[in-house]
Amino acid sequence: MGEPRIKGYEYGHVPISPVTLKELKELEATVGFTDQDRACLKQAGTFLDDDAEALVDGWRKTIGSQPHLAQWFFGPDHRPDEGYKSAVKPRFVRWVIDVFSRPFDQAWLDYQQEIGLRHTPAKKNKTDRTATPEVVPLRYLIAFTAPVLESVRRHLQAKGLPAAEVDHIHAAWTKAVMLSIALWSNPYTKEGLW
Amino acid sequence: MGEPRIKGYEYGHVPISPVTLKELKELEATVGFTDQDRACLKQAGTFLDDDAEALVDGWRKTIGSQPHLAQWFFGPDHRPDEGYKSAVKPRFVRWVIDVFSRPFDQAWLDYQQEIGLRHTPAKKNKTDRTATPEVVPLRYLIAFTAPVLESVRRHLQAKGLPAAEVDHIHAAWTKAVMLSIALWSNPYTKEGLW
Repeated sequence: MGEPRIKGYEYGHVPISPVTLKELKELEATVGFTDQDRACLKQAGTFLDDDAEALVDGWRKTIGSQPHLAQWFFGPDHRPDEGYKSAVKPRFVRWVIDVFSRPFDQAWLDYQQEIGLRHTPAKKNKTDRTATPEVVPLRYLIAFTAPVLESVRRHLQAKGLPAAEVDHIHAAWTKAVMLSIALWSNPYTKEGLW
Repeated sequence: MGEPRIKGYEYGHVPISPVTLKELKELEATVGFTDQDRACLKQAGTFLDDDAEALVDGWRKTIGSQPHLAQWFFGPDHRPDEGYKSAVKPRFVRWVIDVFSRPFDQAWLDYQQEIGLRHTPAKKNKTDRTATPEVVPLRYLIAFTAPVLESVRRHLQAKGLPAAEVDHIHAAWTKAVMLSIALWSNPYTKEGLW
């Protein structure tokens, strides 16, 4: 099979994260992520991977409808950079699939640092050689978790899953998303405060 | 009636936040916080205010059980600073009650900045004249939202509330918590990246 080729998706081929595996394990304990959550996400991925694009489309629609969120995808002409938007999208979808399917190991850790950097002046616009604003402010990464968490619950309910299963998947998803954001915040944070 | 006196709780008497009301409104839109969410939290507060201390006790038990979380409450002797812990607790409880009951206005905005600062070298230990570590790292503030969100859902379910009401309160709580953390992250963040 192999994975579909996604431009700029360099999982397994990025620098080693400055965050240690020990710090990752401590963060996993903090969010409360367990082996059962890992198994739950893996199982959920078998029927959610195909929905990942629809979920991302929903989030991007929300982003597009709020000027303070949409502006980070604008070019120098103050209009949406459609090339950038379409380049970013499959990688956004892939992040969802990775959360469901990948072990949270060194490769995953490294790639979360890369994703964080790609939202900051260090690496934003580099991958796609674009000229959008040089940062997505941290406050929006943190705040946007709310719709990202809620939409997955509604999606699972709409699929008709039993309430207990919805609760388990949603809890595991919540832990994984907050773990991701905690890691992405690293390059934004002042020395010694991360 | 009046509010019970809480040492170091200075709501309405702290400096004006560098975050503007416009930025607050944009963050409220980002998390998706609506007038219905405000009304829902206010209503939930009428029966959850009395539970706020039990919720906080549960979170602190979780914190105490994880050395990487507990250490930020330690004194120079590498043991829990019980004076600090007991000074902080009623303010933590009050944050929960404030989320349920206060309007997200200038006073609330100002106080979220104060709370953020009190987790960083700028103001940690100042209020209680303690000598604990000078920061609670940002990654733990972000990651610990997962148990804070999940425990409220379980608490509401244990109270026997109808599933739809649990969902609504939990969604509103999620939005309010992520809004709080987005604001608390301000003093941690590098110039221009917040």
